[in-house]
Amino acid sequence: MPRRPHIPPKDFPRPPTREYAGTRADAARWVRDVLRGQILEGAFGGLAAARPALPSESALAAELGVSRNAIREALKLLRAEGLITRVQGSGTFVTGAKLRQHLDRLEGLAESLAGHRIPVENRVLSVRESTATPFVAAKLQLPENAPILFIERLRSVGGVPLSLDTTSLRAGAIPLDANFDSDDVFTIIETKLGVRLGWAEITVESVLADATTSELLRVRPGAPLLLLHRLTHLEDGTPFDLETVRYRGDRCSLVTTTPRDQPP
Amino acid sequence: MPRRPHIPPKDFPRPPTREYAGTRADAARWVRDVLRGQILEGAFGGLAAARPALPSESALAAELGVSRNAIREALKLLRAEGLITRVQGSGTFVTGAKLRQHLDRLEGLAESLAGHRIPVENRVLSVRESTATPFVAAKLQLPENAPILFIERLRSVGGVPLSLDTTSLRAGAIPLDANFDSDDVFTIIETKLGVRLGWAEITVESVLADATTSELLRVRPGAPLLLLHRLTHLEDGTPFDLETVRYRGDRCSLVTTTPRDQPP
Repeated sequence: MPRRPHIPPKDFPRPPTREYAGTRADAARWVRDVLRGQILEGAFGGLAAARPALPSESALAAELGVSRNAIREALKLLRAEGLITRVQGSGTFVTGAKLRQHLDRLEGLAESLAGHRIPVENRVLSVRESTATPFVAAKLQLPENAPILFIERLRSVGGVPLSLDTTSLRAGAIPLDANFDSDDVFTIIETKLGVRLGWAEITVESVLADATTSELLRVRPGAPLLLLHRLTHLEDGTPFDLETVRYRGDRCSLVTTTPRDQPP
Repeated sequence: MPRRPHIPPKDFPRPPTREYAGTRADAARWVRDVLRGQILEGAFGGLAAARPALPSESALAAELGVSRNAIREALKLLRAEGLITRVQGSGTFVTGAKLRQHLDRLEGLAESLAGHRIPVENRVLSVRESTATPFVAAKLQLPENAPILFIERLRSVGGVPLSLDTTSLRAGAIPLDANFDSDDVFTIIETKLGVRLGWAEITVESVLADATTSELLRVRPGAPLLLLHRLTHLEDGTPFDLETVRYRGDRCSLVTTTPRDQPP
C-alpha cells in the first residue's frame, strides 16, 4: 500500500476562472473543507512553522472559483473552529496545524514524535495502586478487586496541552516510581517487564470538553475532543493496558490506511 | 489477532465494598468513563433495544465503590453528552448506543450494517458534474479542471440522521442517475465500473457542528462531530474517490485493531 503524500505548493499557479455551482453557504462550507484539508496537510506550514499565513481573500477566491463573500464565510467557519486567526492589518494565519497520530501503528506519543524534535512533556496527575472494578476486571481479564496500577497524565507538546490520559495497568513488576513523567507507558511496559506488546483494540469518539478537562487542556468548556479508548494486549494475548485518552480536537488528528480486504 | 468482545451482565454481582481514592470530581469523571464504555459496548442494550435502563444510583455507587454524589455528577456529565436521559419517576435510560464503524475494513455504511437489519436511508442533496480544483486534482491525480462527479448526501439510520457526506469522484463511467439514494458509493464504483477498490487513506478529527450541518443532522450548533476524510484508491493504485464525512458524535464511534508491528 504505497503512500503518496501531497503538499501543494505555497504559491498556487492561477487556474483559469471557474465558478462554483451551489449557493454561497454551500460554497463556503466546501471552501472550508478544502482549506481545512490543506491546513491539516501543512500546506501553509506545519507544526514547527512560526505563524504560517493564508493567501489573501482575493487570491483564494480566484483559486477556488467562488465569490469573496463565500471565502469570508468559509474563513469565519475556520476561525470558529480555532484553525485560523485574523490579525488586523497583517492577514490570516494558521493556528491549528494538527499533530497526526497513527491508528495503524501501536506507538506512544513520544515514539510517534521522535522524528520531529518536538518535546513531549507529561504532567503526572495521579499514580496509585487501586483495585479492578468489574468493568476493568473484565477488560483486563482479572478477578474483580485484583490489584491494578492507575495513572492519570496531562501530556503537552511544544508547551501546549495535547491530551489527558488515564491508564489502568495489570499491577505487576512496574514500580510506582517508573518514569511516567518522561516515558511512554508502552516503553515502560516493554523495558521494565521485558515483554512485547501485541495489538490493541481502539474506539474513537467525538465529545465535548467538560469543565475539569477543559481547564487541564486549556480549552473552553464545550470544545471538541477526540476520545480514544485503547485496550492493549501483550504479544501472548494478555490484555494489559486499558487507556482513555482525550485529545484536543484543535491539536490532533488520527490517521490510518485501510485495505478493502482484511489482511490475511 | 483474536478479538474477545465482552458484554458485562446486566445485573452485576455485588462486589465487596470498595472506595475510590480521589476527589469527588475525579471519581465522577472516572465513573463517567466506565459507564460510557459500558454504554458503547451495549452493556445496557444495543442500538436495537427500546430504551435500555441504567441500574439505580445506589446500585451504581455500591458497584463502583464511590459516593452517590459522585454517581450523580457522572450521570450529569453523561446527560450533557446526550448519552443518557432521565425520566422523572422512571429512572435513567440509555439514549446513545452508538453505531460502530470499522476503520480497519474499507466498507460502505450499508455494507457495515448489513448484519443488523437496520435500514439506511440516503437523501441526495446534490449530484452534479464539476471540475477539479487544484486540491482535488492533486488528491485524485488529475489535471486541474478535469471533470469530476460531486455528490452530497445526508445519511440516516433507523430514521435518525447519522452523517453528512460529500464525495468527489473521478468522472468516468458512473452515470449521474446511479442509485446514490440507495447504494453505497463503494458498491456503485465496483458494480458499475467492474473495478476493485484497493485501499484508503483516512484522517479523523473532532469538530463542532456549524449552523447548516447541525440543521441537516438535527443536532444543535456546536454539537460534537467525527470528521472523516477518506481518499480511496482502486486496486491498481488510481486515487478515485475523495470523501468528507461528518458523523454525529452522539450516534457513531469508529473502531479498529492495531498491531504493534506493521503487517508485512
